[in-house]
Amino acid sequence: MEATAPAPEVICFETHPDRYKHLKIEVDGPVARILIDIQENEGLRPGYALKLNSYDLSVDIELADAVQRLRFEHPEVGAVIVTSGQEGVFSSGANIFMLGASTHAHKVNFCKFTNETRVSIEDATANSGQVYIAALNGVASGGGYELPQACEEIYLVDDRRSAVSLPEIPYLGVLPGTGGLTRLVDKRHVRRDIADVFVTLAEGVKGKRAVQWGLVDNVFPTSKFKESVEARALEVANGGKPDRKGVQLEALKPTEGEDRLDYQHVSMEISEDGRTATLQITVPDDVPQMPVTASDLGSAWFPLRAFRELDDALLRLRLNYPLVGLILFKTRGNAASMVAFDEQLDQHADDWFVNEVRLFIKRTLKRVDYMAKSMFAIVDEGSCFVGTLYELVLAADRSFMLEEDGVTFQMTNMNQGAYPMGNGLSRMQTRFVWDQEMANELAANRDQIDADEANDLGLITVAADDIDWDDEVRLAIEERVSLSPDSLTGMEASIRFGGPETLETKIFGRLTAWQNWIFQRPNAVGPKGALSLYGRPESPEFDFNRT
Amino acid sequence: MEATAPAPEVICFETHPDRYKHLKIEVDGPVARILIDIQENEGLRPGYALKLNSYDLSVDIELADAVQRLRFEHPEVGAVIVTSGQEGVFSSGANIFMLGASTHAHKVNFCKFTNETRVSIEDATANSGQVYIAALNGVASGGGYELPQACEEIYLVDDRRSAVSLPEIPYLGVLPGTGGLTRLVDKRHVRRDIADVFVTLAEGVKGKRAVQWGLVDNVFPTSKFKESVEARALEVANGGKPDRKGVQLEALKPTEGEDRLDYQHVSMEISEDGRTATLQITVPDDVPQMPVTASDLGSAWFPLRAFRELDDALLRLRLNYPLVGLILFKTRGNAASMVAFDEQLDQHADDWFVNEVRLFIKRTLKRVDYMAKSMFAIVDEGSCFVGTLYELVLAADRSFMLEEDGVTFQMTNMNQGAYPMGNGLSRMQTRFVWDQEMANELAANRDQIDADEANDLGLITVAADDIDWDDEVRLAIEERVSLSPDSLTGMEASIRFGGPETLETKIFGRLTAWQNWIFQRPNAVGPKGALSLYGRPESPEFDFNRT
Repeated sequence: MEATAPAPEVICFETHPDRYKHLKIEVDGPVARILIDIQENEGLRPGYALKLNSYDLSVDIELADAVQRLRFEHPEVGAVIVTSGQEGVFSSGANIFMLGASTHAHKVNFCKFTNETRVSIEDATANSGQVYIAALNGVASGGGYELPQACEEIYLVDDRRSAVSLPEIPYLGVLPGTGGLTRLVDKRHVRRDIADVFVTLAEGVKGKRAVQWGLVDNVFPTSKFKESVEARALEVANGGKPDRKGVQLEALKPTEGEDRLDYQHVSMEISEDGRTATLQITVPDDVPQMPVTASDLGSAWFPLRAFRELDDALLRLRLNYPLVGLILFKTRGNAASMVAFDEQLDQHADDWFVNEVRLFIKRTLKRVDYMAKSMFAIVDEGSCFVGTLYELVLAADRSFMLEEDGVTFQMTNMNQGAYPMGNGLSRMQTRFVWDQEMANELAANRDQIDADEANDLGLITVAADDIDWDDEVRLAIEERVSLSPDSLTGMEASIRFGGPETLETKIFGRLTAWQNWIFQRPNAVGPKGALSLYGRPESPEFDFNRT
Repeated sequence: MEATAPAPEVICFETHPDRYKHLKIEVDGPVARILIDIQENEGLRPGYALKLNSYDLSVDIELADAVQRLRFEHPEVGAVIVTSGQEGVFSSGANIFMLGASTHAHKVNFCKFTNETRVSIEDATANSGQVYIAALNGVASGGGYELPQACEEIYLVDDRRSAVSLPEIPYLGVLPGTGGLTRLVDKRHVRRDIADVFVTLAEGVKGKRAVQWGLVDNVFPTSKFKESVEARALEVANGGKPDRKGVQLEALKPTEGEDRLDYQHVSMEISEDGRTATLQITVPDDVPQMPVTASDLGSAWFPLRAFRELDDALLRLRLNYPLVGLILFKTRGNAASMVAFDEQLDQHADDWFVNEVRLFIKRTLKRVDYMAKSMFAIVDEGSCFVGTLYELVLAADRSFMLEEDGVTFQMTNMNQGAYPMGNGLSRMQTRFVWDQEMANELAANRDQIDADEANDLGLITVAADDIDWDDEVRLAIEERVSLSPDSLTGMEASIRFGGPETLETKIFGRLTAWQNWIFQRPNAVGPKGALSLYGRPESPEFDFNRT
């Protein structure tokens, strides 16, 4: 029953507006526009046509890039309008034929990336002063209405035919699973019984009723739609920030070897059996002076460059290396340099560029938290888990530290809440979720901490001397990769998120887990399931037993 | 691949200590003991032996009954020791052969009921002054260690062999899914990396290390185990409440007809197509005077009796009527009586018995919230949705109200937080989760509210006059039962729980959904899956692709 349409051998996440196939960015002073105009035959794989502005991962990769570049390259922008370049349709969401032909793993990873991009849109609105406005100049259905929900404001054209809808349940037997259900209630404040009606109404809701139900913020007639939205965007942008000079994001262009990738600061090496990946970050010796205008540091600045590389490696690991079940985090390099980089990140937090880099690191570390792979941090000889990089030790499922002179790690101000997890807490606060005072005290420690002390303080999992070290680490790796990968995914998704839940963790937890369950059910993906039969003449046949 | 061991045609949830096969209750002044001594060959179905104090649903039904009866029938008790009647083993958890031979739906419903019972143990500790103490006088593994986690204190015998363990991941490829993962971190405050080590350690942890890791509260040597635990229980019980006189819970004994069940106040009727159940509650005319000692009301008191009947009907619907996808809630009877019952519930909340009834109603309403079935409330002619019963309208996914003179509902003080949901909010607060002030104001309304006003206030979903009424309700029912049941289950589990999450909703949401996903994965339940092959000579074969 598992679909097997071949994915391209390697999915690449780097792109550039010059190479976009589906999106167009227009920047007009304080207001930018992202135009969605999806090319039917330019999907990631053959076998489906991206009709009616429906999307696949190739579109989402461009969208993630667009959101990112607007933040770094166009910091003068204060409002971003997301709208369609096609007549009568904003977007009809994820392409159903693509979903129907995808493996379970591809569906799950596609949805996760989509969710991360939507959260990044909310992050841009909340923390970068780029307010996203969805201008629905046509029908918005399924994911085509979930994307607008990630925007701060939603406007719909009132032309008697353009509706918003979440028809996944009636048409496909799956959930509006990229945030739709959660945001309806928790963000848009649609009453739960009205939400219940809405998500079973295949044809959706249009005009004034869409406003009454809270599905959109306002409607404008066709003749006034564009000008009304533009006027609102100008108002929201409030002049933008014309004094900010953008930073071009240079291409990463890693060297691709057999079973390894080498970026400038990050390397990825796949083990011989293909089950373990080592991600190593090396901190350079030289730290540039902070220029008068911080953005003159450019995208070569180590904290930005290294985390862009890490981000790219994580995404490749998810989509291109499904067999990898365990990531080993290692670091090398100059600890004093890392302290200096963190001081720059800390002391210039009110500079827009430094803030943007901090936000980028935050998002990359969240990408780490959401990996459906086990993670061990290896604090060994020559390692450099300092400050920002120590977050990887806290993010890992386990950490191993060598008991040896000179092997230490060190925290900085950047471990005190600069990079909150999806649950709103720092990784240290999540580690000791029952005692926030202790967590905050521990994060305030500025000593170079060796294995013994780290063990006593509860800051690592295992300390071993050099006689036991190799065996200890080797056995832990062997044991980990022998276990059922599904149970590990479910376990990690549970215990990585102690404490409070937020809109975001509800999407990656409760909603995603239910969707993944449904993505396994015959009523959706079986030969007579609704997702499998979509667009065919046969009607789905359900097993009506409730579970 | 779906296992098909036949379940007994009808599973009955009513039992009594006189008929227990697996448990024994001992009451000794202020301290009670629940002795677990599971009879191998007395499981719910043939085909597996409940060795090593492993359990199936038949054991959990007794446990739920025992916890309930201790609250009502032995309110003098201040501490409850849960221990084993078998040598060397506390409990080895859910029986694996039973799980392996169960349908997906049975596994899911079994786990849900188990989770509800564990939450009821925590409720008894927190709100009934009956503190649960787990006395692990032998090995406690899997669910056999998840049950202790629901207790307030855990003591383990230190005999060099008795360990606590959660070996589900290494042995079965599934999760410790009845609260284990969530309570480890969020309740027991086990550090997440230590939890990660613990749940992959098949042999578990014993002695001092179990204390260090926070898995148990203390260990005692064999020679001192019993006396130490008893002494601690006596201390915790603090004399108990000898002035309280227990209330026997009389048997419900519904009349079972073809496709219907008739209790005293509740009736359940299954539609001809088997897809819809109507649950109707009828409020009597007579309201007894509140006696000097409230517990003299006995278990015939309408609020207790009716909700015990509703609770029983809900459980039967889950296990015995899997085809039912939609519940219609109806009420009949005397509104003035219901107001009077609610006044008794409100004004005597500090009486132990009235408090206990309120807590029981709270738990039953949570059972409603956790139903994997759609629910509509039908506010029609003769209906009596008053106060406590109006909670069913708020719990329903949609409510329909007839526009007609005399058709009204009414709130009472019991709608203002007496019955919090698992998320800690009242149902009204959850309905308007973004505006708690408005929610609280709405719940303070004491008018008789008709359909027009209810519609204006947002207190019902649909109002219809008698010309449209029949069609409106009929079409909604027909449409609902035509949809994919799995997508409805996932949707309802998402939008019923707006707002905050708690330990409890994390268990019923995030943890359960992941477990249900794993329960569908070939690595667990396929022909070469770990759960399927447990106890057989073959080793499981995993597809190591991570999803």
